[in-house]
Amino acid sequence: MSEQSPLELAGDDPFGPHNLPYGVFTTADEPERRRLGVRIGNHVLDAGAAAAALGSPYTALLGGPGLDPLLAAGRTAWRDVRRALTGWVSVPAHRAVIEPLLIPLPAVTMRLPYQVGDYVDFYASEHHATNVGRIFRPDGEPLTPNWKHLPIGYHGRSGTVVVSGTDVVRPRGQRKAPADPVPVFGPSVKLDIEAEVGFVVGVPSERGTPVPLADFRDHVFGLSLLNDWSARDLQAWEYVPLGPFLGKSFATSVSAWVTPLEALDDARCAPPARDVALLPYLDDAGEDEPGGFDLRISVAVNGHVIAEPPFATMYWTAAQQLAHMTVNGASLRTGDLFGSGTVSGPERHQRGSLLELTWNGRDPLALPEGERAFLEDGDEVTMTAWAPGPGGVRVGLGEVTGRVVPSA
Amino acid sequence: MSEQSPLELAGDDPFGPHNLPYGVFTTADEPERRRLGVRIGNHVLDAGAAAAALGSPYTALLGGPGLDPLLAAGRTAWRDVRRALTGWVSVPAHRAVIEPLLIPLPAVTMRLPYQVGDYVDFYASEHHATNVGRIFRPDGEPLTPNWKHLPIGYHGRSGTVVVSGTDVVRPRGQRKAPADPVPVFGPSVKLDIEAEVGFVVGVPSERGTPVPLADFRDHVFGLSLLNDWSARDLQAWEYVPLGPFLGKSFATSVSAWVTPLEALDDARCAPPARDVALLPYLDDAGEDEPGGFDLRISVAVNGHVIAEPPFATMYWTAAQQLAHMTVNGASLRTGDLFGSGTVSGPERHQRGSLLELTWNGRDPLALPEGERAFLEDGDEVTMTAWAPGPGGVRVGLGEVTGRVVPSA
Repeated sequence: MSEQSPLELAGDDPFGPHNLPYGVFTTADEPERRRLGVRIGNHVLDAGAAAAALGSPYTALLGGPGLDPLLAAGRTAWRDVRRALTGWVSVPAHRAVIEPLLIPLPAVTMRLPYQVGDYVDFYASEHHATNVGRIFRPDGEPLTPNWKHLPIGYHGRSGTVVVSGTDVVRPRGQRKAPADPVPVFGPSVKLDIEAEVGFVVGVPSERGTPVPLADFRDHVFGLSLLNDWSARDLQAWEYVPLGPFLGKSFATSVSAWVTPLEALDDARCAPPARDVALLPYLDDAGEDEPGGFDLRISVAVNGHVIAEPPFATMYWTAAQQLAHMTVNGASLRTGDLFGSGTVSGPERHQRGSLLELTWNGRDPLALPEGERAFLEDGDEVTMTAWAPGPGGVRVGLGEVTGRVVPSA
Repeated sequence: MSEQSPLELAGDDPFGPHNLPYGVFTTADEPERRRLGVRIGNHVLDAGAAAAALGSPYTALLGGPGLDPLLAAGRTAWRDVRRALTGWVSVPAHRAVIEPLLIPLPAVTMRLPYQVGDYVDFYASEHHATNVGRIFRPDGEPLTPNWKHLPIGYHGRSGTVVVSGTDVVRPRGQRKAPADPVPVFGPSVKLDIEAEVGFVVGVPSERGTPVPLADFRDHVFGLSLLNDWSARDLQAWEYVPLGPFLGKSFATSVSAWVTPLEALDDARCAPPARDVALLPYLDDAGEDEPGGFDLRISVAVNGHVIAEPPFATMYWTAAQQLAHMTVNGASLRTGDLFGSGTVSGPERHQRGSLLELTWNGRDPLALPEGERAFLEDGDEVTMTAWAPGPGGVRVGLGEVTGRVVPSA
């Protein structure tokens, strides 16, 4: 009796040869040796070992310890390496070499796959920004006057970007309710999530030279899921006038797998119609490729799905965010990461934060283990997502998960 | 006739053996080989070569190509290396070895001395924050309600931190005057400086574990001068609600020399009296060491001094900024850089930005080459500073300089 090969996947496996996301892993017997892996089904292919065994010219790019050399190699290399990998996992003649280099997912520990350069977070969902505006500024216009003219963003803390599976310590800090005479200090009582998508920059750019919309694919390698953990009480007290700081800087979780944009060609879609004329550097009406991505996100707390935010509804696209981020001459580095901002659709169950889902705690969610206005210690938050792929087969985007642990 | 040794300095030389700041340099014949240098008078000592020639145990820490290994080595190593260096430049028996390793400053090119991790910028001068509040919110309280309860800060772009001497390309972007119906795009017409001091983190900290006030010296290695270039028109249109983004992210200049805190023991001073009670993690009344630094900054445009901001007037100290930045569990990395915020004293000629000096352009400065509301293309901005040292001898803090070049 021959065992079935891990390469013989069901035709609709979301991690089939049409996907091939990249990650970095270690194993229990070599916890310090970081290796570049490619996911196929429920296995990880040791990509560097495969390249070496097959005498591939891409051994240096895939040899680890990080994804950084491949990120920096550029679009032609991204395509060529992906083609090679597709062959390795698809062509039967390679099986004898490849199969011994496949490791079951439960036997590996996934690591942060690249060194994060700058981390920028945007605010690109009109539904999210409108909800937040209504909650925090009930007497004013929900959207600030600049919102439809530029993709609002800010820099976050790259040193606290962590890989999926990392525990998140409940942050402490100052908060002040309107009725409090002075701020009080303690663990956040409004710990929240933000369901986002993170875009990973591969090819750097020069200081002083903007990256136009049309060059998006020359610089951005791929995407991952991102949870921008947020302490709403800390944020509310600190954020005027210079924006979020400690309310966000304690942790940002990213999924272990980076999906190359090439795997998402079938998921490209037009962004929502714009109702304000855009300045030329942001006007994407004439671009060859539609700017949106049809990603279907699911957010669960302790295994119970609480939201299904549709990424296709995002007002600002990643290409517009990149063009805006560099239009002032700011340069890009390999490993720069930019988050989309919270993904919220028009429906209530499509909101990507507890702030919106519970309307700042007014309408708690009923979970089997109790009501949730915000996160409790021990809660585990898991985002997953998929996108339409070739022939209707899904492209799996993996997951980003994290558990809340009490303040030390 | 014997030439005078470069080590025979005047007793009041601000770069004597009491100072010994660190930098990284290259030379014209080896432009790729970055070496760690220590400034003595108007020369740079090749510190790695000196350590090797003298058989020092610190050869690895000083061998370059960056300051990073020494930053990470910790306070005991910082003290021991400094003692060794003091001996090398002071003890006559070492002269025959050391003198050939001294290179005149004009013969070297200074480089960014370490890899910048996260860059955070604060807003710690009460005079600056008050001036800005009066300019932008003339009908409200100049200080926001949180200002005296916590050191307000935000994350900036670490990828565009550049070393002194680097040209700064005038940023382009969106601006919108109140009377404009829609934003317009173009080169900034309100390009400004912010005179600051930047603190360099050496020893990292763990995520989830705050760094208390008392541990400041265990983590922070030294300081340099910092110019936080700011496009006021871009910033004004973009900054609500998430803070400064493109108005700041195009360039931040730092001086080439990092002065170790140990060289500034005689410059420590008490910060201004606090008129609001501080939460315990920020209350520095009982600390062993006074939290302030008496640094005397001078800002010149095209060689004409336009301001002399006194760092001793800063309301929030660097130790308080570090304690606040980590109180939510955010971790530190070697090379993290945090800026003090614009240094402005109570007097008009002590204001550290053109925004304040010209009151947002209302009162232009008269320079020999013409009036200046904000910076013109070709303008060169130079900040220098010194601090009181042992026996009244000054500790020179070098300079940070940059020239504005037109948008491409």
